[in-house]
Order: sequence, then structure tokens, then C-alpha cells
Amino acid sequence: MKHYTSIHDIDNINSWIEEARQLKENPLKHIELGKNKTLGLLFFNSSLRTRLSTQKAALNLGMNPIVMNVSGDAWGLEFEDGTVMNGSTAEHIKEAAAVVSQYCDIIAVRAFPTLTDKEKDESEQVLSAFQKYASVPIVNMESATGHPLQGFTDALTISEHTLAKKPKVVLSWAPHIKALPHAVANSFTQAMQKMDVEFVIANPEGYDLNPEITGDTKIYHNQEEALKDADFVYVKNWSSYEDYGKVKNTDPNWMITKEKLGNAKFMHCLPVRRNVIVEDAVLDSDSSLVIEQANNRTYAAQLVLKKILENSPS
Amino acid sequence: MKHYTSIHDIDNINSWIEEARQLKENPLKHIELGKNKTLGLLFFNSSLRTRLSTQKAALNLGMNPIVMNVSGDAWGLEFEDGTVMNGSTAEHIKEAAAVVSQYCDIIAVRAFPTLTDKEKDESEQVLSAFQKYASVPIVNMESATGHPLQGFTDALTISEHTLAKKPKVVLSWAPHIKALPHAVANSFTQAMQKMDVEFVIANPEGYDLNPEITGDTKIYHNQEEALKDADFVYVKNWSSYEDYGKVKNTDPNWMITKEKLGNAKFMHCLPVRRNVIVEDAVLDSDSSLVIEQANNRTYAAQLVLKKILENSPS
Amino acid sequence: MKHYTSIHDIDNINSWIEEARQLKENPLKHIELGKNKTLGLLFFNSSLRTRLSTQKAALNLGMNPIVMNVSGDAWGLEFEDGTVMNGSTAEHIKEAAAVVSQYCDIIAVRAFPTLTDKEKDESEQVLSAFQKYASVPIVNMESATGHPLQGFTDALTISEHTLAKKPKVVLSWAPHIKALPHAVANSFTQAMQKMDVEFVIANPEGYDLNPEITGDTKIYHNQEEALKDADFVYVKNWSSYEDYGKVKNTDPNWMITKEKLGNAKFMHCLPVRRNVIVEDAVLDSDSSLVIEQANNRTYAAQLVLKKILENSPS
Repeated sequence: MKHYTSIHDIDNINSWIEEARQLKENPLKHIELGKNKTLGLLFFNSSLRTRLSTQKAALNLGMNPIVMNVSGDAWGLEFEDGTVMNGSTAEHIKEAAAVVSQYCDIIAVRAFPTLTDKEKDESEQVLSAFQKYASVPIVNMESATGHPLQGFTDALTISEHTLAKKPKVVLSWAPHIKALPHAVANSFTQAMQKMDVEFVIANPEGYDLNPEITGDTKIYHNQEEALKDADFVYVKNWSSYEDYGKVKNTDPNWMITKEKLGNAKFMHCLPVRRNVIVEDAVLDSDSSLVIEQANNRTYAAQLVLKKILENSPS
Repeated sequence: MKHYTSIHDIDNINSWIEEARQLKENPLKHIELGKNKTLGLLFFNSSLRTRLSTQKAALNLGMNPIVMNVSGDAWGLEFEDGTVMNGSTAEHIKEAAAVVSQYCDIIAVRAFPTLTDKEKDESEQVLSAFQKYASVPIVNMESATGHPLQGFTDALTISEHTLAKKPKVVLSWAPHIKALPHAVANSFTQAMQKMDVEFVIANPEGYDLNPEITGDTKIYHNQEEALKDADFVYVKNWSSYEDYGKVKNTDPNWMITKEKLGNAKFMHCLPVRRNVIVEDAVLDSDSSLVIEQANNRTYAAQLVLKKILENSPS
Repeated sequence: MKHYTSIHDIDNINSWIEEARQLKENPLKHIELGKNKTLGLLFFNSSLRTRLSTQKAALNLGMNPIVMNVSGDAWGLEFEDGTVMNGSTAEHIKEAAAVVSQYCDIIAVRAFPTLTDKEKDESEQVLSAFQKYASVPIVNMESATGHPLQGFTDALTISEHTLAKKPKVVLSWAPHIKALPHAVANSFTQAMQKMDVEFVIANPEGYDLNPEITGDTKIYHNQEEALKDADFVYVKNWSSYEDYGKVKNTDPNWMITKEKLGNAKFMHCLPVRRNVIVEDAVLDSDSSLVIEQANNRTYAAQLVLKKILENSPS
């Protein structure tokens, strides 16, 4: 594996989960692997879990993390080819990516979608440009259409809580006041499709995810029906894909309650708006796995970095 | 000691001072103690000394510091319980504190008061929430009502400059154009009350600090009288406590001058507004201890981190 | 060498180049030299290359870098002497520089010019204040009038691409929409004056650099004439020096094209506005050295830090 930009970069999710569980048991075992190597973390957007867990993962491997908030710390970046740069952007991604590659052994990038320009978002303008113009491996810390560190984390968390039987996993849309990206829902869907689980999606009409991603995954527009006999309920808001980036529905009846959850485990990538996405009673109960998910972010990132380091010329 | 949130967490100030002086003589002696441990520094407000000295303290103990400006880098945090989060806050402190605890062995927090809502400030909303919801030790890097790293630093500095006799220490209010917190004055008062010094406070009428903190410490409303025979004059502005957060007095006669100071040593936590709080002639003279105070911030923080690390399960 | 604030601090540019080339071959050779030493990087302005390469250089020497964005992270700084600080600045540089010296073994500072107050800029208000009031060595990460880490980098890069014959090096002005500093052009000029090269400058009338810096270096107002038989063309915009900080000319005919470049190598400090300063065809060709220049920033900074560390009392 050179880059880690999508769940598709996972060759065998079961062996990855096994390896991540080993890292979690002994996080410092490979502390010599990344010695004197630098991880550049470039943020175009806000981040708490990703920012801290990816740094922690790098430190566990002995790497030196260097963090940069691209917008505030550096120069406005241009992504269009052939443009006459006499506007607000001062540096082209061609130079920026090549330059950062001189100082970092791996570059991790967070760049959210516009949610207004579907074509641009689907082209993964920022992430692709880093892949194209950087000379070192790229890690996706959430891009326009995917959040594969989160997706793998979630697969790991489910594996840790799965008993003998094949579990039923439901990804359920929930209401939110703002237009949110599809990245987490996409990567979770892709991860579940690789797992030995019964996976279904519940969302209101007009909120079906990109059909190229959902494929033959069953989609319910009736939440109650989808939740029946669920073992894990992964909740997340996303804006409309069809009517791209629009908020068409804020129906509070889609909020997850303790009653709806039943005996299932509750999952969310965080940050989560309490009593909008899910009621307090769920988050404050033992049914919630959200803090364990956050903890697993470290080991997901650590495994990705470890695989890249092992695959890199030293 | 689990947390360090107030001067009251110091069990024996004299033995703490002795230990801090030993650290200062040999700062790297315990560099193995914090190896592969992470200190998260979370800033809700500006910081120079605290930001740098606490990182330096962590590095002296072999720890990895990770700095985050909460407001700019992460998500708007919600502190109210039971609220429907459909406004500007995207993440509840319950999750945030628990999540950061997954990545950091100790969390240090800076969160200033509102100075408009006395009840909220006195409840130490932010700091208390971290104590309540984090699963790791919390260090106060200046909260609504206290700055105990500064308070202990000041005790250490006074101890280094004290000759045989019991010194007289005066905390004097000085004018300022803005409404400033009471945190430094409170913690200094609490630290002096634990020391073997003659301690008095001078401030204009209407500026008495919280009587629960000043206790039976003598308060003068006549600065000249208070300063008589002083050995150390600690100068600081604070807004009114009684008429909470208001600037009721900017009388330049309360500024400290070389003449007023006499043979006493001048102390201030910094940043200090020159020729408003104190005249240039004082700061530029040998009577000023402000740079030594800043230096001692490192060893105060280092002792606090050391005590927490020694007390933590490894 | 105590401080590194200008190209004039290089005693022998040829031996420096030789030493930097050795560091580049074996960057980790001196990793014990900076162990447990701290480099403070203080940014008053945006930075990408300098921010990352200087951190990388510190890490290669085993130092701990601590980064601070002065404007956002800390307090507004006052630089005027004797002022009554009742305005927007909360801390005087006298205290700030002395304080940071307590926590850092070396302080690196970036502070751009005003471009409106020539006298203030030429006095190097910020950098000089750090030199005056800090008690540790200061490294210039681009000041009002110089960028000596870049200047030395450029000398190193030219040395690596120079064949037997003495090369002709042209510094050519190019158009830009904004008023830019003279720092890079100044330091490049000073570096070339120390090298065994034929060095000339090309700029429009009204754009001659400070004559105290250009000295007897030949200045052409006709770009074509200057570029004749060039081996290296270093391109950079700067605002007028004479009519200080003004943009008097944005003539696109001064943009560098593949045709104008001929067989010469293209150099620029970056960030560069494509198709304003230089056309895509140049940057995307093998004639461009810009990425190699960026790479050499690490070794230039590393040599400077190494020399300072070797010269410091331990």
C-alpha cells in the first residue's frame, strides 16, 4: 500500500482488524519503526479526534508529527490547472504538495467538500492533487467523499463487540440543522460491505447516498423497519446527495432514542449534536460505543502509518 | 494528587518549593518519567508564558506535548446539560473531554471567565466539566477563578529572594483599561496565605476580592499605607468583584512607580502594560523579578506534572 | 556566530556551502547535538516552507521545536519605547523576548515589513528588538529587509548546479498584483555578491533595490539584455523601494517565459503565482529548480542551527 485514501485500499479487512487489535494491546511495540520520520498533518478544516489521534498514532510509532492549519498558517492554495493566479490564491498545489514532500515522509490531509459543486467534490480535487503532486504517501484524514480512517475504526469497533452470531448493522440518517458531508456515511458503508455482517441503510426519501457506493446494500426509507433486530446502529446526518448538498428534511422523528435503539449498540463518529441526532439517554448509557470508537481512531491511524512505513524505502 | 486545579491541591507548600528548586537545578533528572506519555494542552484563550513553559516542562520530563487551540482548531463546545444542540455548538464537553482522555495521559486546560456571569464563572464551568468528564488528570492553566501554576511560581520566586527575616508581601491592584479576571490575584492570595510571610492587599474601594478567598487577610484601600516596609510588591489589575466584571476605577495614581516601590522587589505575572500598571523605570531596574517569575513557570509546571505522573497508574 | 540575522553573518560562503552539502548527505549525523534543546519558532506572518523546513532542520539535530503564531496564539506586542500602553497592545517586546528566552535555547522569528513606513522597516523593528531583549540566539526566518535562510539556500542550490565555468546569475523582477517585500531580493543579492558568479539584476525603472544593498552590482532596466547568456534566472517580484511599498508597474511583459529562459535554470523562493510571475511551461519543465530550492531550505536552516548550537554554552 502506498497511499491510504479510501476503504478500497484495505486488501483484507479481517487481517487489518487483527493487526489493529494487536497494536492496541501493545501500542509501543513498533516505536523504532518511525524513528526520525516526519508525519505532516495538513488541515484545511476543523478537527479534534483526527488531529489528536493521528498525532498520537505517529508518536506511538516514534514519528515526529508536524501540524499545519493550511488556511491560517500558510498561503491560499490554487487547485485549477492553467489559471492566471492574479486573485486570492498565492500558491499552486503543484508546488505546495511537492514542497511539503521535501520535509515529510508521509502527508496526511483533511479537506472537506464544497457541498455546492458535486463534480468538484467527486473529483476529490484536494486529495487527488496531493496524490498527484506529492512524492510521498498520502493519508486521507477525511476528504470530500470519504473518511477511511473513521470507516476502518468503526469496523474494528464492531469486531470487538460482536458475539458469535453474524450481527445486523444499520446505518441510520438523523436530522441536523446544517448541510453535512457524505464522507463518513460513504466510508462506513464501504467498510461494512467488506465485513461479514448484515448491513442495511435507513434514510428519508431524497437522502439516498451515491448509488455507486451503496451498490446492492438494502436502503429503507422507513427507519423503524430498518432498525428491527439491529445489533449496531450507526447514526449520522448527511445532506442530500441527489439534490446535492441541500438540507431537505429536519424531521425530529428520525432522531435516535433509547426506545428505538432497543438492545442495539449505538455508534457515531462524533462530534454529535445531543438531542438533535440522538437523545442524551442513549449517549449517557452503556449502549453507546462512541468513546471506544474515538479510542480506536488511534490504532486505525497507527496501523495505516505502520503499513505505509513498512512499505517505504528507508 | 490526581488533578491540579487550585492552590488548595498543594499539600505542603514548603516541600513543594524545595522540590521545585531541585528540579530547577537539574531539570532533566526525571526525563525518563514521562517517556511515551502525552500532555494535551487545550487553549480556549490566548497564552504565551503558559503555552511555552508548560510545553517546556513536559519536554523536560520526556513527555510529548500536543497543543490545540480549541476555538480555532476544533468544534464549538457545549457545556450546558440537557440542551437541544441546534445552535452554534457542535460538540458537547461530555464527549470532548472523554475523547481527549483517549489520546492524552494528562490534559491541561486554559479557559478564562466570562466576567459577565458571576455564577457561571464561580462554578468553573469549563474546568469542572473537564474534571467531571475526562478520565485522566486535569491541570489548570488558568481558569475563571484561579491560576495556580502562576500562584505556585510566585511562591517559589519569593522563597528564592527571601533573606532571613519574614518578608512583607503586598498584593497591589493597579489600573487597566480593560476588565481583567481575578484568577491571578486569587491564586496569589491563596499561595501567600500558605507561606510564612506577612501578607496584605491594597486595592481601591469597590475592588475587594471575593471575601471567601481573602478571608482574614488585611485589605487596605490606601496604597501608600499598605506599601510601607514592603519587601515584595505584587502588582495586578482586576475588575470589580462586587460589581462583577466592571471597570469602576482607572485612577493612574494607583500605578506603581520607582518611588512607591522603594527597596521592595517588583512582581507581576505578565503580560504587563507599561506605564499603565507600572512605570518603565521599575521594569527596567534590578528590582523587577518578572523575568525570573516567567522562568519559574517551567519548574512549577514541571513539578505539577511530575507529581501527577508519579501518582498515575503506568 | 551568535545570531543569524543576515547574509553578512556568513563568514565564508564556500565553506558554509560545503558544510551544508555534507549535512544533506547525512542529515542525522548530528542528532545528538541538539538533544533536549528547544527551538522556538515565532510567526508574525504566514509561512509554509520556512515553518516546515525549520522544524525539520531542528528535528534532524535532535532539537524540540515549539511553534507559536504570535498574533493568534499570544498577546498583541508593543515595540515602541516609553509608550503608555493603554491601546491594543498588551505586552512589550522587552518582556516577551526576555520571557521566551527562558524557555527556548534559540528563537527563530518571522516578521514582515509594513511596506508603508520605510524607516521602521529599515530599522528592523521586530527582529532588532528580539536581538536586543532576548538572551538567546536569534534566527531570522524573514524579516522586513532580509531572508537570509532563503539567500543561503539559493547559494547552495546554485553551487549544486554549477558546472566548471563561472555562471551568470540574473535576478529578475516580475509582475505581481500586490505590494511585496524586498527581503528575498535583498538576501539573494547579498548572497550572490559573496559567490564567484557573474551577477546582474533586471527590473523596471523605479524598481531599483536599496542602493546600499545592490552596491556596484549592475542593474538593467531592459530584461532581455540582462537575460542574455544567463545560466540561472532568479525571479521575484518586489514593490518599489524608491516610492516605498508602491506597486507602480504590473507589465505582463516582465513575466518569465520558456522562450526568455532559454537554457538557463529557473529559480524562485515560492510561493509563486503561476502565469503572473512565470508561465506554467517553465515551472513544469526540468529547467525549474524551485522544488530543489525548497528541499535545500532544510539544510540551510540545519547548518545555521548547528553553528549556533556548537557556539553556545551547554
